[in-house]
Amino acid sequence: MRSNPPRLEPKADKDTVRRHNLSLVLRAVHDGGEATRAGVAARVGLTRAAVSSLVEQLLDSGFVTESGKTFSGQAGRPGTVLKVARTGVAGLGVEVNIDYVSVCVTDLSGDDRVRLAEHTDNRAAPPAEVLAHAAALASRALGSAAELDLRPVGVRLALPGLVSGGTVRQAPNLGWNGVAAGELFARALARPLPVGSDNEANLAALAELWFGGVGRERTFLYLSGEIGVGGALVLGGELLRGAHGFAGEIGHVVVDPAGPACRCGSRGCLEQYAGQRAVLRAAGIDENAGLPGMAELESRARADDTRAVEAIRRAGSTLGLVLSGAVNLLDPDAVVLGGIYRTLMPWLAPPAARELDRRVVSGLWSGDSGRLRASSLTGDASRGAAALVVRDALADPAAYA
Amino acid sequence: MRSNPPRLEPKADKDTVRRHNLSLVLRAVHDGGEATRAGVAARVGLTRAAVSSLVEQLLDSGFVTESGKTFSGQAGRPGTVLKVARTGVAGLGVEVNIDYVSVCVTDLSGDDRVRLAEHTDNRAAPPAEVLAHAAALASRALGSAAELDLRPVGVRLALPGLVSGGTVRQAPNLGWNGVAAGELFARALARPLPVGSDNEANLAALAELWFGGVGRERTFLYLSGEIGVGGALVLGGELLRGAHGFAGEIGHVVVDPAGPACRCGSRGCLEQYAGQRAVLRAAGIDENAGLPGMAELESRARADDTRAVEAIRRAGSTLGLVLSGAVNLLDPDAVVLGGIYRTLMPWLAPPAARELDRRVVSGLWSGDSGRLRASSLTGDASRGAAALVVRDALADPAAYA
Repeated sequence: MRSNPPRLEPKADKDTVRRHNLSLVLRAVHDGGEATRAGVAARVGLTRAAVSSLVEQLLDSGFVTESGKTFSGQAGRPGTVLKVARTGVAGLGVEVNIDYVSVCVTDLSGDDRVRLAEHTDNRAAPPAEVLAHAAALASRALGSAAELDLRPVGVRLALPGLVSGGTVRQAPNLGWNGVAAGELFARALARPLPVGSDNEANLAALAELWFGGVGRERTFLYLSGEIGVGGALVLGGELLRGAHGFAGEIGHVVVDPAGPACRCGSRGCLEQYAGQRAVLRAAGIDENAGLPGMAELESRARADDTRAVEAIRRAGSTLGLVLSGAVNLLDPDAVVLGGIYRTLMPWLAPPAARELDRRVVSGLWSGDSGRLRASSLTGDASRGAAALVVRDALADPAAYA
Repeated sequence: MRSNPPRLEPKADKDTVRRHNLSLVLRAVHDGGEATRAGVAARVGLTRAAVSSLVEQLLDSGFVTESGKTFSGQAGRPGTVLKVARTGVAGLGVEVNIDYVSVCVTDLSGDDRVRLAEHTDNRAAPPAEVLAHAAALASRALGSAAELDLRPVGVRLALPGLVSGGTVRQAPNLGWNGVAAGELFARALARPLPVGSDNEANLAALAELWFGGVGRERTFLYLSGEIGVGGALVLGGELLRGAHGFAGEIGHVVVDPAGPACRCGSRGCLEQYAGQRAVLRAAGIDENAGLPGMAELESRARADDTRAVEAIRRAGSTLGLVLSGAVNLLDPDAVVLGGIYRTLMPWLAPPAARELDRRVVSGLWSGDSGRLRASSLTGDASRGAAALVVRDALADPAAYA
């Protein structure tokens, strides 16, 4: 029982329905964690016979596995347990940020099975070189994936800037303008895989939504603090992309119109107050010290170094100011702080929360509202990217069999 | 051929389908402006016979009228022209703002058929009195509507603050906190009509979307400049309401954390720089002069009075600063300025556009982008409110027959 090849002629209706149902059944198994055929049938509203036939196809094509274990707690005959496969179809995510590249392979369940990261100054080299370097790291990850019997069916790039149709329109901190990142990456990757691209904060926000235990908070603003400050808004479980795909640029909200020049061409952007370099500089640490610099900042703050603590507090207060405006505008359930902000929360969060308390007109952010919190994950953008590839496969498994 | 009463038992399926199709046909006639039965059938994908039966029901219950005119330009027999009725089911919208009350009755096509407005300082009286006054004005509008054979089937209140479930949680400029506005209004209105409530900027934005010729710009940020500065975001033709219904409060985005105290409890909110009172005061006009004060401001600006022109320009520049942040965050297609901003555009728009040009990172707001524009309508919130009542009737005509 092999899947039919995709057809586009009008007669394809029956195929289309079967393909759709195949995805329904696969997603029921995926979302359920562990499921029986009877449980899946009840959940998706198809007959037991139809589900069995579809499950056969999913077993044949390696999307689903069956264990000897049986459920007997439910009504009817005990059934063997179905799970999505730990091998086979997988997703590859590649984050190219200002001073690092990070790669992740997730399996069908979204678990991150391969992780690789390298610290490297991506401002120093031309885009083609940076992307070739990322492709080399991705190739190593593909090798590790093969050893685990995982077969990534696509790549998604996570990029720190405005991305549209595979092209980086603007990534001020990389100095990229109109860079066809998807194409350059695909050319450098030995394996011919479909390559998609997206903003890194968007993908980190999706990772937080899917794996971060956000729970009922399906409407939240996500910030990724790095050298740049990225943002993304998730509304009822979906990304708000805006009219042209450029929403979320909270790093370029103006704090002081006469403030320091920003690489975007404006002045006084949030990034100039709460970005990694600004915080390091204010703490008296080399602003280009990258991750070791951040570790130094944290250790000084832990040792109650006044300058370090003050630098983080001031960033938190400015962050809170801008966040209060965003919350007044968007009314999210929560604000989730990722990237460098995660480890700085003890010093960053109180002054930020104070501004939110004072300035959010709904009053829902008063006192200890618990609405401002650290992200649950690190290295989330590449995982979100990989999971998005997997999500496409779950939506139409027949196309990936 | 009378509509069946709504039923909720399982057997109601056939009724439910007919009710749904009744709405489909009505909306096809509504959206088409003028239509034939054959045209409607082609548009909604039902048989000609089914459409004829549903049209009979809509004619019987007065939602649709038929004219002697025929279309012969289309294939097949010429058909008589169907239109939504200019009489019968209608909507009533009531805007209670800081210094005026405005009432509008729209017919099924959304045309505003009755308009009444009164200037009155609503800060001076307790909420129950303000709402009783608004109800008295609404009653007069109901009288005028009756003379036009219009029968409003519901009321929607437009209120300048955070509204949730009929209650004004916060309207800083009115000084209202936790006011059950819907209930107070309903009690004061002689006629027993269902009363809904919403934020005034939300309703003005919907009016702009439906009647303002926004065209393809279905993702836009709307600002209503009054004593307060309200805002609303329309995303792909739908209002973004946020997690608790409080989105859009752009008037309380902070411009300067140490700026003048705002009635919301914060400091330096946009309202303190670009609200009606701030602009009047900066121009050297009594800040409480209301509409006559605004007329005076405009006439001074037209006469090139430096202080008046400078006051409006400074407001425009501050508005542009805050808008650049909102655009970076939300990536709308356009920003639409309503209320007092409409007539101030010649002086307000250039400095605002300059900030957007300089500070929006996508570059889509550079130069003469045409994305910042005045709203097409005045008194839009009450019309949007009335049209929302009509939209409910269009969605389920059987419930209003």
